[in-house]
Amino acid sequence: MCLLRQTGKENGLLGKSLLIRKPPVELSFPDGKKGKHKMNILVINCGSSSLKYQLIDSISEKVLAKGLCERIGSDGACITHTPAGGEKKTDTIPMPDHNAAIAAVIEKLTDPEVGVISSLDEINAVGHRIVHGGERFSKALLIDDDVIKAIEDVSDLAPLHNPANLIGVRACAKLMPGVPMVAVFDTAFHQTMPSKAYLYALPLEYYKKYKVRRYGFHGTSHDYVSNRAAQILGKKREDLRIIVCHLGNGASVTAVDHGKSIDTTMGLTPLEGLIMGTRCGDLDPAIITFLMNKLDCSAENVLTILNKKSGMLGLSGGISNDFRDLSRAAAEGNKDAETALQAYALRVGKYIGAYAAEMDGADVIVFTAGVGENDGAMRKRISDYTEFLGTSVDPEKNKIRGEEVILSRPEDKVVTMVVPTNEELAIARQTLAIVGSKDVN
Amino acid sequence: MCLLRQTGKENGLLGKSLLIRKPPVELSFPDGKKGKHKMNILVINCGSSSLKYQLIDSISEKVLAKGLCERIGSDGACITHTPAGGEKKTDTIPMPDHNAAIAAVIEKLTDPEVGVISSLDEINAVGHRIVHGGERFSKALLIDDDVIKAIEDVSDLAPLHNPANLIGVRACAKLMPGVPMVAVFDTAFHQTMPSKAYLYALPLEYYKKYKVRRYGFHGTSHDYVSNRAAQILGKKREDLRIIVCHLGNGASVTAVDHGKSIDTTMGLTPLEGLIMGTRCGDLDPAIITFLMNKLDCSAENVLTILNKKSGMLGLSGGISNDFRDLSRAAAEGNKDAETALQAYALRVGKYIGAYAAEMDGADVIVFTAGVGENDGAMRKRISDYTEFLGTSVDPEKNKIRGEEVILSRPEDKVVTMVVPTNEELAIARQTLAIVGSKDVN
Repeated sequence: MCLLRQTGKENGLLGKSLLIRKPPVELSFPDGKKGKHKMNILVINCGSSSLKYQLIDSISEKVLAKGLCERIGSDGACITHTPAGGEKKTDTIPMPDHNAAIAAVIEKLTDPEVGVISSLDEINAVGHRIVHGGERFSKALLIDDDVIKAIEDVSDLAPLHNPANLIGVRACAKLMPGVPMVAVFDTAFHQTMPSKAYLYALPLEYYKKYKVRRYGFHGTSHDYVSNRAAQILGKKREDLRIIVCHLGNGASVTAVDHGKSIDTTMGLTPLEGLIMGTRCGDLDPAIITFLMNKLDCSAENVLTILNKKSGMLGLSGGISNDFRDLSRAAAEGNKDAETALQAYALRVGKYIGAYAAEMDGADVIVFTAGVGENDGAMRKRISDYTEFLGTSVDPEKNKIRGEEVILSRPEDKVVTMVVPTNEELAIARQTLAIVGSKDVN
Repeated sequence: MCLLRQTGKENGLLGKSLLIRKPPVELSFPDGKKGKHKMNILVINCGSSSLKYQLIDSISEKVLAKGLCERIGSDGACITHTPAGGEKKTDTIPMPDHNAAIAAVIEKLTDPEVGVISSLDEINAVGHRIVHGGERFSKALLIDDDVIKAIEDVSDLAPLHNPANLIGVRACAKLMPGVPMVAVFDTAFHQTMPSKAYLYALPLEYYKKYKVRRYGFHGTSHDYVSNRAAQILGKKREDLRIIVCHLGNGASVTAVDHGKSIDTTMGLTPLEGLIMGTRCGDLDPAIITFLMNKLDCSAENVLTILNKKSGMLGLSGGISNDFRDLSRAAAEGNKDAETALQAYALRVGKYIGAYAAEMDGADVIVFTAGVGENDGAMRKRISDYTEFLGTSVDPEKNKIRGEEVILSRPEDKVVTMVVPTNEELAIARQTLAIVGSKDVN
């Protein structure tokens, strides 16, 4: 299958002669029969100074290896790599830029000891998480120059994220020339929202000129989880009204109405909506100028506080943005921690009620992501607000952590369940679907 | 009953010798048997350049006269006065300050032709609408120096409103010395909210130091309307979960749980929550800096846009903030007007769902204020989102404008109804309750 079977090291991957796979190995790509041929898909989530990766086998859907590059561009840059069934190991490696980070990833993946493939040839496609697709992208698609240009064009909507995502795209293009790459947008799933849900009550010209509107994020997760929930229930997603609560350090709720996102809590940016780890979520907009006056600082400074110092961390009086710490503190009698947990649950509960109104009821409520999957106490607090819809939470089942489980009773009007999310797998699947169905050269 | 029976004119009310009623006429005040003695209560709602007034008879609760002073402090100041059963008439009168405005009001009320009382003595108490009571005031109370000081102390929470309200208080104190005055706060009814509902997810010190929290407004209206709704239904408010939709040019929804406000859509300021006439309501807080960059203007300028140029006016592309204009435009096929109306209804519907979650269901949904009382089409749009709670709207009954009416069927699980609000009467009643129960000298 492969023209070359050399590890990155042997080919001097960290050096200059990186163009070892041109032209690409055509036989590695499926011949239109999706999923028939095994493909290894590298999923990349690239931030401004970090890069997460997973190599996923398209047939078994298993993670062959995963890891994280940190402090890219700084002293003390390091890569943490974990091969399937192997040990997690962190190495300090100079990574002056993202090219060096991608090279380090390839080196790890092809390393004779901790690697899981023998050469670059065995990476058949790359799926990139792109945060903001603006209004242009309502689904994943093959990356070409036009797509890169379009992602650049909407970068003012996500100035911290899109440029960083593109650095990862360009580094991969350089180090893995010819390997098809797919852009999977965090916003794409929400592009089905109707204008009554995505428009803010601002002068309409701001939408027309500057594209100020609700976009929503975590789309890959909301899509994956709502699909999986329907599958578990043996129903079609198109027949259900599903409310997905993605409760991680970033958090959002989405109303998935008969298969389509019709509303979601995050907005133009990921700052709006739920209380998050360090983000404030919903706020009286007048608070910004109020705080500028009180703190004698700029709007940008206030925005940084709203993003980095607020949320559960801020509301708890600085205890933590980690729900385990907060639960412990609350159990030990800390009232600020207790209030923060109550406020968090209330906000989620209110959005569930709001989306039930928007969909004329609900059939399924799904919890996912770190808090949603693992924090039974928080699920219970939230579910206390959803009883009026006709659902319940079985205390025994609610002890389960990180697994697919139905928490409500069969006779309940609304199903409450947990479905662990897997954004990397969802990106790999979308990448496969595009690469496998296109005439990729 | 009265020591003096002179009109303001005869006593030179617009001149200097205004201290005509000191000491106050004790016989005019009830002797502890509330409501037994007829009292005339002047209700004042004082803005920075305007002043609304009503003189209300405490026994019949009828409005004896009402009016509005406009452009106070500017050229072309005028007073529009309407005696009960008489004609509305506007006079241009120099009103260099609020003292002059109050003097003009007294002159009109005591005018031999358009007046309704023969002298100042017949004004037995004044009820002032005060916008912001901060955390200090959870009910109306008699105004003294301490109260004025406390209202000043929270003025940074409502810098446009509280100082203007106090100008009215001081003008009345000067022109009607000895007449007891009561402060009725727009925020007071909401002081029963629990901390999980009133705290924003900001660094907790901002609440402790600067009192940044949700206060809520329209409290006098939400209190009055929820009380009246229970009365109409022949039930105790303490036994009901009531969602009041106060939909005027300013608009808010409140969850009144067993008699207490437990959550409301307006926040630190009246900018948050529903889409309003010209106010944006809920917004991703990051939009402020985004717009500052796009429009190249200050945060204060953006805030002005959010308050004055947004809401239905902005969202409709500048058509109008008046729902009659918007409905007409939508009927004529204007899509922006139609979308604005849809977005408005959706926002209200979502909050009803949210508050149903917060109260573990709802018993009554009440519409009030301009739009809520008169716009049956909007009530229908909103009610389409509340059917899942088990309520309905009778199309025939829904044609009724500005009257108390139950729109749902007797067998419905949740009552939907219209209760016209009357903030002035509510202020008069609260004023009477305090003046009538105190040993006022």
